[in-house]
Amino acid sequence: MTINKKEMKLGAFFMIPGHHVAAWRHPEAEAHNIMTFDFIKRLAQTAERGKFDVVFLADGYAVRGKKQNTIGQTVNTSFEPFTLLSALSTVTENVGLVGTVSTTYNEPFHVARKFASLDHLSGGRAGWNVVTSGSNAEARNFNLEQHLLHEKRYERAEEFVDVVTKLWDSWEDDALLIDKEAAEFANSSKIHNVNHKGKWFSVEGPLNISRSPQGYPVIVQAGSSEAGKELAARTAEVIFTAWQTLEEAQAFYADVKGRMKKYGRSPDELKIMPGVFPVIGRTEEEAEENKLLLEQLIPEEAGITLLSNMISVDLSGYPVDGPLPDLPELEKVNGGKSRFTLLKDLADRENLTIRQLYQRIAGARGHREIKGTPEQIADQLQEWFENGAADGFNIMPPYLPGGLDDFVDLVIPILQERGLFRTEYTGNTLRENLGLKRPVNILNNRLKETI
Amino acid sequence: MTINKKEMKLGAFFMIPGHHVAAWRHPEAEAHNIMTFDFIKRLAQTAERGKFDVVFLADGYAVRGKKQNTIGQTVNTSFEPFTLLSALSTVTENVGLVGTVSTTYNEPFHVARKFASLDHLSGGRAGWNVVTSGSNAEARNFNLEQHLLHEKRYERAEEFVDVVTKLWDSWEDDALLIDKEAAEFANSSKIHNVNHKGKWFSVEGPLNISRSPQGYPVIVQAGSSEAGKELAARTAEVIFTAWQTLEEAQAFYADVKGRMKKYGRSPDELKIMPGVFPVIGRTEEEAEENKLLLEQLIPEEAGITLLSNMISVDLSGYPVDGPLPDLPELEKVNGGKSRFTLLKDLADRENLTIRQLYQRIAGARGHREIKGTPEQIADQLQEWFENGAADGFNIMPPYLPGGLDDFVDLVIPILQERGLFRTEYTGNTLRENLGLKRPVNILNNRLKETI
Repeated sequence: MTINKKEMKLGAFFMIPGHHVAAWRHPEAEAHNIMTFDFIKRLAQTAERGKFDVVFLADGYAVRGKKQNTIGQTVNTSFEPFTLLSALSTVTENVGLVGTVSTTYNEPFHVARKFASLDHLSGGRAGWNVVTSGSNAEARNFNLEQHLLHEKRYERAEEFVDVVTKLWDSWEDDALLIDKEAAEFANSSKIHNVNHKGKWFSVEGPLNISRSPQGYPVIVQAGSSEAGKELAARTAEVIFTAWQTLEEAQAFYADVKGRMKKYGRSPDELKIMPGVFPVIGRTEEEAEENKLLLEQLIPEEAGITLLSNMISVDLSGYPVDGPLPDLPELEKVNGGKSRFTLLKDLADRENLTIRQLYQRIAGARGHREIKGTPEQIADQLQEWFENGAADGFNIMPPYLPGGLDDFVDLVIPILQERGLFRTEYTGNTLRENLGLKRPVNILNNRLKETI
Repeated sequence: MTINKKEMKLGAFFMIPGHHVAAWRHPEAEAHNIMTFDFIKRLAQTAERGKFDVVFLADGYAVRGKKQNTIGQTVNTSFEPFTLLSALSTVTENVGLVGTVSTTYNEPFHVARKFASLDHLSGGRAGWNVVTSGSNAEARNFNLEQHLLHEKRYERAEEFVDVVTKLWDSWEDDALLIDKEAAEFANSSKIHNVNHKGKWFSVEGPLNISRSPQGYPVIVQAGSSEAGKELAARTAEVIFTAWQTLEEAQAFYADVKGRMKKYGRSPDELKIMPGVFPVIGRTEEEAEENKLLLEQLIPEEAGITLLSNMISVDLSGYPVDGPLPDLPELEKVNGGKSRFTLLKDLADRENLTIRQLYQRIAGARGHREIKGTPEQIADQLQEWFENGAADGFNIMPPYLPGGLDDFVDLVIPILQERGLFRTEYTGNTLRENLGLKRPVNILNNRLKETI
């Protein structure tokens, strides 16, 4: 298998029925199919037709818009990621299946097992987007009054990932024998306890599922805070991140890749894929119209709610056509710190009102918005890719299925023509398609006791 | 939809590659396909061809046979139930999909959400087998030294089921509007907090997925202890239970159905389906040979381990051709209490050695074994069904695929000919096929606050 290093990686980030906060109101969005598997199956097959590396699902454990009473204007129903990705594994053959799971409200044994199971089901196409959760609404669904502090969440996340990878190593690759004559189902000397005892977790192991095709499902992360960057440099294989400008993205790219050496990792072992919200038109005018159509569909309360959640500050009491109020110091924000900084800087830089700011971010939600003809979209991706800002992109279609169809039918052929993207899948697993090595089972180095 | 009350319900209990502890050594068992989705897909499609009500998956959170060093002779790898059932939902159309989930090592929010998601995916075919887990090996994978006491587990289970059903009710059936013009995605007055605050759980809600086709996925239980029977009478819709004799099964049937009235439920709202391990031959001699073949394939250590686990007593130090040692009092058993009693009584009654006892239970594992020609198998099912011992049966094929193929191809046609089993699916959902009512959303009675 040869990987052309000049080819970018692409993710299809599914938010059903689209990333724009008003996507469900778009005349062509299939909002009525939001709980229909056949619709999402069609989307996944489109992504596969486009040779995307992965289908990517975000996740959270609470409805949005309760506090501001905009729950009725917000899409608050969706499939749980494991059930959906497992179903999609049967109707696709090559595309990777990346699900988001929080380390704050789950147990390592369950998470290790579910991803191994999805990896077996899909023939080696599973990936785990590791998040730490950041809302009090989620905490209140899990016996807590408010969510853990940022440092505690990252401390727990570090140990969580460590336990999960130990469990994935608890069966050696060749542990299964299935020798009927000799009555040896497995080689018991190749199945190991993990005997983890840490601050957050005590897990004996081994896992009750054999090592999966990829060894470890691909590990994806999103955090861009200091703690997030360090965790990513140590453990992530894909970073899904949010940057508005080339300079910011370049600085982040150099920063994280530079941190990897001290963990014995080469820069190639991590693919940095910023999110991109593409507004595509056959002409520049059509692209502009598509953008305006979506902006006009944003209910005012829903826009304010979206912005409030993103900066962890309730804006419902302030004039919508006035500026942002004074915001708390960054240290006092116990939510997505990088997103807070990004939006505050954007509002300051361009002197935006609350309404202007929510219209600006209602689609991309802090990610980079690119707009224009298919050629212009391809140009903008190529610029970042060739200038040390990205190894690829996580594509966030404004509405579905149209936004994905347009990208696959209009933009991908241009990228392929320029030699910037694959025309066929070359690997058998997600790791191989991403150009990532299969992890060596390191338990012999770190686990002393076998069962 | 009309349900013929004279028709039994049937479950296909999948333990891959078969229920017998030596199933994987059977010459025709596809042991090498244990982690191959296409194999299990074929089994599910066979069950559907046979018009089974459900495919049933057991589950546990630890490997077996560690302590007795028989891990290499034991099948310790399998798919996680949600990933597998979701994948199966895409390759079947009518058969129900019942997964086992423990209330001891999970959170109600996740469980309510996953079952709602599976129910949406499958068009209303999901069922939850509620168990409380009973092994220290599982506890040690979840931060505990030993598992909760029996009473504590049931106390937690009662509250857990209560929270889950509240969450399933947190969206009214007609909450979704998806009115693009009016900017109303949902009717917010029909989405409710659950605000549960109990001894074990504090959960605000609502769920982040709309009410599913069945309202509640079908609730299945297995416990036959005093606490288990009471919980079942209050909340179960299907009971999967284990009895050896007609008299025991009749007594249990009358007991549990008799307890339902005080919870305002009619006996029809609960289907009692004992497990049955069918050893089928085209002749009586062939059936006997099939049984002997499996018995001879049991490795001695694996047999002792199986028995030790089932009675929660380590038998590895005792002569295998001698009797059971003195067993502890029932009150001191902190595992499956009903299974302990059943096996102790069986050994006493027939004066069995350890080897004889493990050979006897190595297939059915405490459930009823029936053996013979297809006619004789059908007779034995009919006897219990028509004499107040069962509403149907959970069929436990000795090995796969052959044990299931034989049941579907040889036994089901006889049951159908006698008018004891359906020839076509008549309902659209699992509830309809089982003859169970769709639950009324009772949140207005018990939840005061809307969001």
